[in-house]
Amino acid sequence: MKNLIIASTSTLHGSGYLEYIMPELETHFAHCQMIVFIPYARPGGITHDEYTEKVAQTFARIGKEVVGLHTFENPAESIKNAEAVFTGGGNTFLLVSELYRYGVMEPLAEALTNGTPYLGSSAGSNITGLTMQTTNDMPIVYPPSFRTLGMIPFNLNPHYIDADGQSKHMGETRETRIKEFHAFNAVPVLGLREGSWIEVKGERITLKGELSARLFRQGLDAVELETGCDLGFVR
Amino acid sequence: MKNLIIASTSTLHGSGYLEYIMPELETHFAHCQMIVFIPYARPGGITHDEYTEKVAQTFARIGKEVVGLHTFENPAESIKNAEAVFTGGGNTFLLVSELYRYGVMEPLAEALTNGTPYLGSSAGSNITGLTMQTTNDMPIVYPPSFRTLGMIPFNLNPHYIDADGQSKHMGETRETRIKEFHAFNAVPVLGLREGSWIEVKGERITLKGELSARLFRQGLDAVELETGCDLGFVR
Repeated sequence: MKNLIIASTSTLHGSGYLEYIMPELETHFAHCQMIVFIPYARPGGITHDEYTEKVAQTFARIGKEVVGLHTFENPAESIKNAEAVFTGGGNTFLLVSELYRYGVMEPLAEALTNGTPYLGSSAGSNITGLTMQTTNDMPIVYPPSFRTLGMIPFNLNPHYIDADGQSKHMGETRETRIKEFHAFNAVPVLGLREGSWIEVKGERITLKGELSARLFRQGLDAVELETGCDLGFVR
Repeated sequence: MKNLIIASTSTLHGSGYLEYIMPELETHFAHCQMIVFIPYARPGGITHDEYTEKVAQTFARIGKEVVGLHTFENPAESIKNAEAVFTGGGNTFLLVSELYRYGVMEPLAEALTNGTPYLGSSAGSNITGLTMQTTNDMPIVYPPSFRTLGMIPFNLNPHYIDADGQSKHMGETRETRIKEFHAFNAVPVLGLREGSWIEVKGERITLKGELSARLFRQGLDAVELETGCDLGFVR
């Protein structure tokens, strides 16, 4: 039975790393001693070790051990045996490239389908969708495919942000970018604002956190979904 | 002899399409009757015809005819014979995919190297760099390669925007994204603010417009370059 928390962001403004969601994570990881951390997305280019250390310090507060996937000789095998998995944010192109390079994409999908508790934030959430094509990240490396884990039957746009009516910047708004995606793709996209997350329990998919989320579907007007909403109809 | 105008944006806030740069374009295209327009980037998903019509209306004001590259049976051949070329903005992943699909990337690079006057804006500017890896766009389609025209020996980040110190949004700033690019790539990146453009005349590359631009190089602090600056040292 699937058991995932898929968060828009790791960090809220003015708050510590994962702080806003820690009570939720205590329950989520209650039956695990050790969490395997996937540091591949390397935010700001930090090393795997630096990133893992930061995550280890955070989870030490709730008595969990954290080990970086990069420290195992056979990452694919380690994912199969993991008690729990957390994939942190950073660059989604890099994360997806590394998951393919180390042959982790498929065993990870299999493990999550079989019930390994999972936490994703930002890029680590992006990969739970059907494809990574609604990421906000720069294509700093060329992945062999844009296909991702498909743990939910739609795509995500983490760090979703509404257009700023006061801005004089002419770059595309997030909504325009997603509209461009829908000119070529039928996959629904959920714009997940910072502080929101999705809970997946078996086949049940629920919007959590204090905010509403914005749902984009090909050929339809975007709609706001209230927190607590059952997302089963999004496919 | 190369002859390019590479603009950050087509449109400034509160001003018409290409309006801010039209005096420059009158000189740039002075000896051309007809401009071949590459509409592949399809901003907001508009059709090739709609996009070409918008551009045709704009250039009619300075007495130029515009024809869309999508109307030719053999786009690669048409590029070779073009008097002048303009590539408009939109989605860079889509633009690059279509340039490869229609076999236009190579003949376009050849034509520009041989002196065909070129205008690029936004996505149409991105492709003049070595790769499209510092685009801001979403990967809505999967291009066969990230390599682009290489008309300048560096990459661009069009619509460059400084971090907003007041923002509570935790998504990566533009500067952080470019830093992530430099964790894996040695190519310099010029952050080109809206209203700035680069002029390429033969081997001379000059920053134009009213604003400074921000230069990012691997392992070095970012620096501001004043308008009028000779960009020959950036490689």
